Amino acid sequence: MSQNDICLHRVQYYETDRMGIVHHSNYIRWMEEGRTEVMRLRGVDYARIEATGILMPVVSVSCDYKHPARFGDAAEIEVKIERFTGVRLEFRYRICLQGTGLLLAEGKSVHCFIDEQTRKPLNLSKRLPLESRTMFLLAEEAKGAEE
Amino acid sequence: MSQNDICLHRVQYYETDRMGIVHHSNYIRWMEEGRTEVMRLRGVDYARIEATGILMPVVSVSCDYKHPARFGDAAEIEVKIERFTGVRLEFRYRICLQGTGLLLAEGKSVHCFIDEQTRKPLNLSKRLPLESRTMFLLAEEAKGAEE
Amino acid sequence: MSQNDICLHRVQYYETDRMGIVHHSNYIRWMEEGRTEVMRLRGVDYARIEATGILMPVVSVSCDYKHPARFGDAAEIEVKIERFTGVRLEFRYRICLQGTGLLLAEGKSVHCFIDEQTRKPLNLSKRLPLESRTMFLLAEEAKGAEE
Amino acid sequence: MSQNDICLHRVQYYETDRMGIVHHSNYIRWMEEGRTEVMRLRGVDYARIEATGILMPVVSVSCDYKHPARFGDAAEIEVKIERFTGVRLEFRYRICLQGTGLLLAEGKSVHCFIDEQTRKPLNLSKRLPLESRTMFLLAEEAKGAEE
Repeated sequence: MSQNDICLHRVQYYETDRMGIVHHSNYIRWMEEGRTEVMRLRGVDYARIEATGILMPVVSVSCDYKHPARFGDAAEIEVKIERFTGVRLEFRYRICLQGTGLLLAEGKSVHCFIDEQTRKPLNLSKRLPLESRTMFLLAEEAKGAEE
Repeated sequence: MSQNDICLHRVQYYETDRMGIVHHSNYIRWMEEGRTEVMRLRGVDYARIEATGILMPVVSVSCDYKHPARFGDAAEIEVKIERFTGVRLEFRYRICLQGTGLLLAEGKSVHCFIDEQTRKPLNLSKRLPLESRTMFLLAEEAKGAEE
Repeated sequence: MSQNDICLHRVQYYETDRMGIVHHSNYIRWMEEGRTEVMRLRGVDYARIEATGILMPVVSVSCDYKHPARFGDAAEIEVKIERFTGVRLEFRYRICLQGTGLLLAEGKSVHCFIDEQTRKPLNLSKRLPLESRTMFLLAEEAKGAEE
Repeated sequence: MSQNDICLHRVQYYETDRMGIVHHSNYIRWMEEGRTEVMRLRGVDYARIEATGILMPVVSVSCDYKHPARFGDAAEIEVKIERFTGVRLEFRYRICLQGTGLLLAEGKSVHCFIDEQTRKPLNLSKRLPLESRTMFLLAEEAKGAEE
């Protein structure tokens, strides 16, 4: 895994709750922050995709919480494309404490692509071949790294 | 002040921070919740206004924090129109603890109206005379109640 | 299912994103709002549980998004206890559009109980038998309703 | 003004609303992010202050919105200590678009210091002389820069 696939997030005070830890809903937001940033560094700019009239809604999301993060901590959000078919995109996330590498949470999100006007599903490979190619390669790369 | 001008908000766990109290940024959101709900009960539906292509951006906001709210509390958000000129709308808020009436926070927000397409300011009295009339009356009513 | 098991949530403007729909992370917050409110109505007050020095961290969460909610909508959050063992608590959620009953999302959350001081897991049945009994009954009730 | 006094924030998708711009409540959070980060870089670590049993609640906050930020933008949060008396701390913020320098918003926040146990106000100069000295110097520096 290259350094490109990690996004650093410093825990904000407004992300904590009265248990003294980061509220669990924020990890779902960190995943979004992670995939946006990591894709951007790889040349797939989500703001640019949207500018072409394509939206990428979330189909499902899940998260397993392993260890709480606290104010003052910084989290490393590792993002991998697990699968990309052109009509469906799956990300895997590992969120670790910076410094120690302690696993804080693991998650997954599934996305599809729709036309902003018609709100109908579409195949990204046909509309944005360049971005699609990058995603195919990243999915291949992630698979290769596991083997 | 009529009961119509109060919106009840039950404090959510995700609104607390590690001080054990509601994070200060949420009061800004409660003001929005309050003005949306109170206007709606008075017949001015913000979702309907937006459907006509008019947006109501926030020009400024301020809040004085008097007493912290906690998880388990319910807050009464009292909303008053302080001033409405057709191009500018000012709200005043008093947020109190339900039951005791203890003042938690006081705030103010100023809004203008813009056309969704051109993003240019507009006079609501010309575009939506009915809603404008209600706002004028509410502003008069609030002024009368103070005297 | 009784009316007690439903919590109504009016969509807030601050919950929408630039896709024009409710941001997916907010459904995770709605689940919390739902379980807190539904449990409270059944006599299990989470604020009171915390006051006895017991915390209920989230172990895992998942959500499948079926249809987007928008500003102006109200959502019905249906909450069921799927399983309660004393050391582990599982909730199921169905979030529907008020009025039409259209399914917006389905989700699940798993929780454990820990001592606030020691941060060690604990068995709620031993510490709070009354609340535990209610949860056992609710889990039974939910199971019975499905058969 | 030194580079130390600026904190960079990349706009997140979850911070936008259905107007297509950053929701106004997030600027209040960005101010917190800014003051935490800028103080930390100057050697005043808020997590460390809290670890000594001192909390820094917000007394008041205000924000004037000049120009909307959008997804894909990065914001520079400039933070200045306007006044520090030992019992009261005032920050000023200017939030600008990275690259162009376009002013997005200006704000202010006022804070006091309380003891975590007694919840009574305290004078930081007596409890944390080192951090207090830094804040005094930063307030002097900011004043000097304006003259």
